[in-house]
Amino acid sequence: MIDSENTNIRSLQDLLSEYRKYASGISWTRDPGGLYIPVGYMMSLPGKALRPISLLMMADFFQKDLGPALKASYALELFHNFTLVHDDIMDQSEIRRGQQTVYKKFGPNEAILSGDVMMIDSLKMLHEVCRDSGDYGIMNAFYQTAIEVCEGQDEDMAFEGQLEVPMDKYLEMIRKKTSVLLGACFFIGSRLAGMPHPDCEKARELGVTLGLAFQIHDDWLDFFGDSSLTGKVKGGDVLRCKKSVLILKTLEAATAEQRPEILRDYNRTFPEKIEKFDSIFRELDTRESVHRLFMSYRNQCEAIISSFNCLTKVHQSRLREFMEMVLNRTY
Amino acid sequence: MIDSENTNIRSLQDLLSEYRKYASGISWTRDPGGLYIPVGYMMSLPGKALRPISLLMMADFFQKDLGPALKASYALELFHNFTLVHDDIMDQSEIRRGQQTVYKKFGPNEAILSGDVMMIDSLKMLHEVCRDSGDYGIMNAFYQTAIEVCEGQDEDMAFEGQLEVPMDKYLEMIRKKTSVLLGACFFIGSRLAGMPHPDCEKARELGVTLGLAFQIHDDWLDFFGDSSLTGKVKGGDVLRCKKSVLILKTLEAATAEQRPEILRDYNRTFPEKIEKFDSIFRELDTRESVHRLFMSYRNQCEAIISSFNCLTKVHQSRLREFMEMVLNRTY
Repeated sequence: MIDSENTNIRSLQDLLSEYRKYASGISWTRDPGGLYIPVGYMMSLPGKALRPISLLMMADFFQKDLGPALKASYALELFHNFTLVHDDIMDQSEIRRGQQTVYKKFGPNEAILSGDVMMIDSLKMLHEVCRDSGDYGIMNAFYQTAIEVCEGQDEDMAFEGQLEVPMDKYLEMIRKKTSVLLGACFFIGSRLAGMPHPDCEKARELGVTLGLAFQIHDDWLDFFGDSSLTGKVKGGDVLRCKKSVLILKTLEAATAEQRPEILRDYNRTFPEKIEKFDSIFRELDTRESVHRLFMSYRNQCEAIISSFNCLTKVHQSRLREFMEMVLNRTY
Repeated sequence: MIDSENTNIRSLQDLLSEYRKYASGISWTRDPGGLYIPVGYMMSLPGKALRPISLLMMADFFQKDLGPALKASYALELFHNFTLVHDDIMDQSEIRRGQQTVYKKFGPNEAILSGDVMMIDSLKMLHEVCRDSGDYGIMNAFYQTAIEVCEGQDEDMAFEGQLEVPMDKYLEMIRKKTSVLLGACFFIGSRLAGMPHPDCEKARELGVTLGLAFQIHDDWLDFFGDSSLTGKVKGGDVLRCKKSVLILKTLEAATAEQRPEILRDYNRTFPEKIEKFDSIFRELDTRESVHRLFMSYRNQCEAIISSFNCLTKVHQSRLREFMEMVLNRTY
């Protein structure tokens, strides 16, 4: 139940500061160092902290005391980072957040084991939040999310080996791999705020939909973003033959005759590949069709924001502000 | 609280059958197969099921309905198997329970990810047992155990790179790596039985001590066991320069003059290494000193068994029978 509306809700910037303060108070100087130094290293890399901010934002709507929400948001960020540590081994990624990955810096064995303890610790912290609040419903829901994140990563790896992936399966994969965790943050935050159950479920749906929109935007930026702002090579996904919404939308639009050639070209490396796909994407309207898909998710977010029963105009406008922050990147 | 004593407690063999029946009812035919087929494979390999039996044995003392205990015992076995799947990657082990390891059969990436989902699923199942029984104390305690298991594995890896390891640090490592999980089984079983808290803590201590005795016995058998019964090469630890209680006890007994040479020989490979250590172990009384260490833990188990407040002679005799089963192996 909602105790009392927090009439002076915090800005997103203030919530980020609160989170950073809380996170800096968690020490990973523990024995054995071989296990915990990589955890401390990973948690100190600068990230956008979208998950903690979203959880705190929801909790802040009806709770002046952010204590439990801060602990929960750290737990979720720890869980997210566990998935990154293990994913970086599987993908053999060497750079994460501008620094060496745990896998590269400490070796695969430490990355496996430090990731394991991060996961256990994250669930332990979340369990303690439940214990202290007497609401174990959060925990019941979170296990399902955690399992889906693993399933999404597995589907992602499986898709790497497949020439063509149907769009609906691809979207389901990114829903599990990246969106459900943001959904869990919205859900847990609103639950800690004491919002009624139907609104907590709406919050979860908002987080999941926002996560999908974010990922589609991310795929779009990879090719159509401003390279001078991203600092990345244009079309990294194309160059690495990586599945993305762009190529799947392109294949959807292609004729039966065009499809085999596009597929063949996408899955090989050759000079001027970017120029080639620039022209294919132009011919098949990829830039606009992916943008329309993105906008459909963005509009769904807008519709969900307007549909909450317990939120005031002030709350809704804070949610829109968060959405803008997440989706209005040009890099 | 103890509801009622189960006056017709089950035999260890019956408990194993109950467990096997329950385990065979758990299906891992789930999507995506890439993630869950390795889990099903691992859980189908024949094991001794010491952890499930110990948990069920304790619960059975005061509970006719073994439902929650069966679920908890499966969860603990699943957790144990998660640790094996990840350990086998780190150790690059190819054989486990007479079959290919998950790492070898499905590759390191699937072993990482399938291990992850096994761990999450195990905690989820245990959480559900707590939820259904209304006793979350089990979960609070289990997180600490799970963290210690990771710490123990890390210490084990760290010791591999060290020439000499003090005996107390080595025993603390095997306590964490292997014994605390058996302790958790005894604790959870007695908690589900409704035993009073001090007796639940005694049960945990019994499991931990039994685990230590088991591990010391295991190290002893590796060199002094009957190779015709074990089917293993005599002195596998010696041949692989692997730390064990044997070499640590030997170094304790050696003079300051002898120690460097023993260390140097232990950490290199040469023909007749087994014969050489046969004579070193004989000279320094290793066979007997390790046996005495083993007996001291065994006697501690006996003392704990006699000290329970709520157990009858029948219960105590069942505990002794379990202890015999675990410790009286000659192979």
